[in-house]
Amino acid sequence: MTFRYSLQTNNGLARLGSFSTPHGSIKLPGFAPVGTQATVKTLTPEEVRNLGADLILANTYHLYLRPGSERIARLGGLHEFMGWDGPILTDSGGFQVFSLNDLREIDDDGVTFRSHLDGSKHKFTPEKVMEIQAQLGADIIMAFDECPPPLDRAYNEQALARTHAWAVRCAKHQQRRDQALFGIVQGGIFTDLRQHSARFLSDLDLPGYAIGGLAVGETKSQMYATLDDVMPHLPSDRPRYLMGVGAPDDIVESVARGVDLFDCVLPTRIARNGAIFTKQGRLNLRNARFADEPGPLEQGCDCYTCQRFSRAYIHHLIRAKEMLGFRLTTLHNLRFLEQLMDSIRTHIAAASYMEFRSDFLRTYLGTEPHSLEPSRPVDR
Amino acid sequence: MTFRYSLQTNNGLARLGSFSTPHGSIKLPGFAPVGTQATVKTLTPEEVRNLGADLILANTYHLYLRPGSERIARLGGLHEFMGWDGPILTDSGGFQVFSLNDLREIDDDGVTFRSHLDGSKHKFTPEKVMEIQAQLGADIIMAFDECPPPLDRAYNEQALARTHAWAVRCAKHQQRRDQALFGIVQGGIFTDLRQHSARFLSDLDLPGYAIGGLAVGETKSQMYATLDDVMPHLPSDRPRYLMGVGAPDDIVESVARGVDLFDCVLPTRIARNGAIFTKQGRLNLRNARFADEPGPLEQGCDCYTCQRFSRAYIHHLIRAKEMLGFRLTTLHNLRFLEQLMDSIRTHIAAASYMEFRSDFLRTYLGTEPHSLEPSRPVDR
Repeated sequence: MTFRYSLQTNNGLARLGSFSTPHGSIKLPGFAPVGTQATVKTLTPEEVRNLGADLILANTYHLYLRPGSERIARLGGLHEFMGWDGPILTDSGGFQVFSLNDLREIDDDGVTFRSHLDGSKHKFTPEKVMEIQAQLGADIIMAFDECPPPLDRAYNEQALARTHAWAVRCAKHQQRRDQALFGIVQGGIFTDLRQHSARFLSDLDLPGYAIGGLAVGETKSQMYATLDDVMPHLPSDRPRYLMGVGAPDDIVESVARGVDLFDCVLPTRIARNGAIFTKQGRLNLRNARFADEPGPLEQGCDCYTCQRFSRAYIHHLIRAKEMLGFRLTTLHNLRFLEQLMDSIRTHIAAASYMEFRSDFLRTYLGTEPHSLEPSRPVDR
Repeated sequence: MTFRYSLQTNNGLARLGSFSTPHGSIKLPGFAPVGTQATVKTLTPEEVRNLGADLILANTYHLYLRPGSERIARLGGLHEFMGWDGPILTDSGGFQVFSLNDLREIDDDGVTFRSHLDGSKHKFTPEKVMEIQAQLGADIIMAFDECPPPLDRAYNEQALARTHAWAVRCAKHQQRRDQALFGIVQGGIFTDLRQHSARFLSDLDLPGYAIGGLAVGETKSQMYATLDDVMPHLPSDRPRYLMGVGAPDDIVESVARGVDLFDCVLPTRIARNGAIFTKQGRLNLRNARFADEPGPLEQGCDCYTCQRFSRAYIHHLIRAKEMLGFRLTTLHNLRFLEQLMDSIRTHIAAASYMEFRSDFLRTYLGTEPHSLEPSRPVDR
C-alpha cells in the first residue's frame, strides 16, 4: 500500500510515527511549511529541504487561478513545476473560497465565486476540486468542505451535512490512485457535531483525516477541548492533521492530544513582518533595541541565519525592507518549528513528552499546560 | 604593498590582470555586484561568492544614514556586519547626494543635504566622507567628487576644479592604510577636461582610478569616445574602474578601451522587474509567451536558476510577485555578467578579444562594435 501510517510508539496520546507517500515518507508529528503559490515564500526547494521539512502544502484555489492547474499538469505537475521532489499536500480550496465573503455563493452543489485577481467567475464542486487536485498531482489531497465560524451552532449543523455529502462525492470522483484523499472533520466547537463528523468520515475508510475549522475565532481552551473530544473518535491507524495550526504552543498542546500533522502560514507570515520565534516567545526585530545587538537571533539555534548573522544586521535589513531580511527570518522561523518537531519526536520516543510539554510551555508562554480532558462522548 | 595591480597580459588595449586587497585578490576585468544597503538585494553572501564575484560595492550615503557608519564600526565594520569576507568597495556618497536635487546645496567646502529617509540635515565634506568610509572599513574607498550632467560644459569646468581640490583633501585625510583610495576622473564628454582630470589625478599617485560621470545622459558613442580619449592618460600600472556601467555591450566595449572594473545596479534592478540578460539580448519574463515554456531562462547557462527551473515557473513567480522569482532572476543576471567576465578574461589571455567582442555584440545587439579611435590629446 502506497499510503501507510506506521505507528512507532505512543506516549500518552502523543504518537510517534510516519506516513508513506509516492514522494517519500513524512515523519510524524510533523509540520508542513506553506507554499501558497507553488513556493514557500522567499525560499528555494533546497532550502526548505535543508530545514528538515518532509512535506509542503500548496493552495488549490491560488494555483487553479494562477498559473492554472491545467497548465501545471501540462508542465509535468506541481512537483516538477516548482522543483520539489518530496511529498506535497494540496488543500481543497474550500477555506479560501469561503473566505471570499461577498464574492461567493454556496449551494448544495458547490461554491460559485469570483477570482480575487480579475473578478472572473468560477465554480468549485467536489468533482471539480478532485479534478483540479488530480491536475496538480500532490501526494495528499483534501476533500472539499465548508468552513463555518466555529462558534455558530446553527450554521455548523447545516454546513456539516454538506461537508459530509461533499466528502462522499470527493471519494467517489477521486481520479488518481497515487494520491491519498483525506477527509476533513468539521463541527465547530460542538462536541456532538465533531464526534458525528469523525464517525461519519471514518466510515468512508480514507487514508487520513484532518480537523478543520479550528484556530479561526475560538479560544485556545475551546480548541484544545474540541481536540480532547474528537481525537479518540478517529481511527488510530490513520494520520491526523490539524489544519492551519502552527503556533508553537498550539502544536505542543495538540500533539499531546494525538495530532500528527500541522501546517500554517504563521512562521512565514510573521517573518515578513520581522517577527521571530524563540524558546522564550516571539520577538519583533523591528524594535530599536536590536539595532546594536551583535548576537544571533537565538542563542543555540542551528539555523543558517543564526550561524552567520547578528540581530543588528537583520534589524537593519528589516528596517530597510531588504528581501534578504525576510529570507533570513523565514529560515529561522521554519527551522525553529522543524527543531521543535525534532524535539517532540525525540521526547515521545523517550516517553518524556509530558515533561517536555510542560517545560516548553513554561518557557515559551510562562504558563502551565492546559489540562488534558477525557473525551465526552455524545450520542446522536 | 597591500594594494597592487598586476598586469598579466594585454590584447590591444584590453588588459588581463588582478588587484590585491587585504580581503583577497580581484580578477580583472571584473564586475562588482552592488549591495547598496549592505546586501546584494535578495542574495546571501555565499550566493554572491558562488556566482564568481570577487568584489562587491556598498553605498556610503545609504549606510551613513541607516544603520549609521558609527554603528557599523562598533559592530566590527562592514565585512563583519554583512558577513562578506571578500573585498568591498564603498563609493563616496557623491553621486547619491548630487542626485537629491532640491534637497542639497553645494559649496567649495562640501554638500549640505537632507536625508531622503527622515529629512534630517547632514553635510558631506571630503574629510567627513573619508571618516565615514574609514568607519565602514571597505578595502577600496572613493574620493568625494561632484558629478555634473555630462553634456554641460560650463558646469563641468566649474565642478572639475572642485572635484580636484576635494581629491587632494581626501588624499590628505585618509585615515587607514588598509584602504586603497581611488580618484575619480570627471569632465563630462569633453576631451580636454577629461585629459586634464586624468593627468591631475595621476599626479596624486593613487592606487587606482575611476571614470565617473558617464552612462548618465550621453550617447553610447559619446561614452566610448570619451573612454578612447581618456584611458591612455591614466597610469598603466593602476586599475581603471568605470563607475555605474553594467550593460553587457558597454562592458565589452569598455574592456576593449582598457577598463578593468565595473559596477552597476542594472543586473539586480532589472531582475526585480522580471527582465533577464541572455546572449541574444534582454527578455522580460512577464511576457505571456513564457507562461508555458518548459526550458531554462537561457540554454547553456550554468547558473543555479537555469539548472533547476523553467521559464514557465519563473514567469509564474514574477507575475505572482513572489520573492523567489526576484531571487532567481537576480542570480541569473549576476551569473550572466560573471560568465561574461570569465569569457572576457579567457579571450584576452588567448589574444582573441577583438573577435570575441565582435561576435558578442553581433549576437547581443545585432550590430557591429563601435570603432576604437586613437586618443585626441588636447593641450591646456
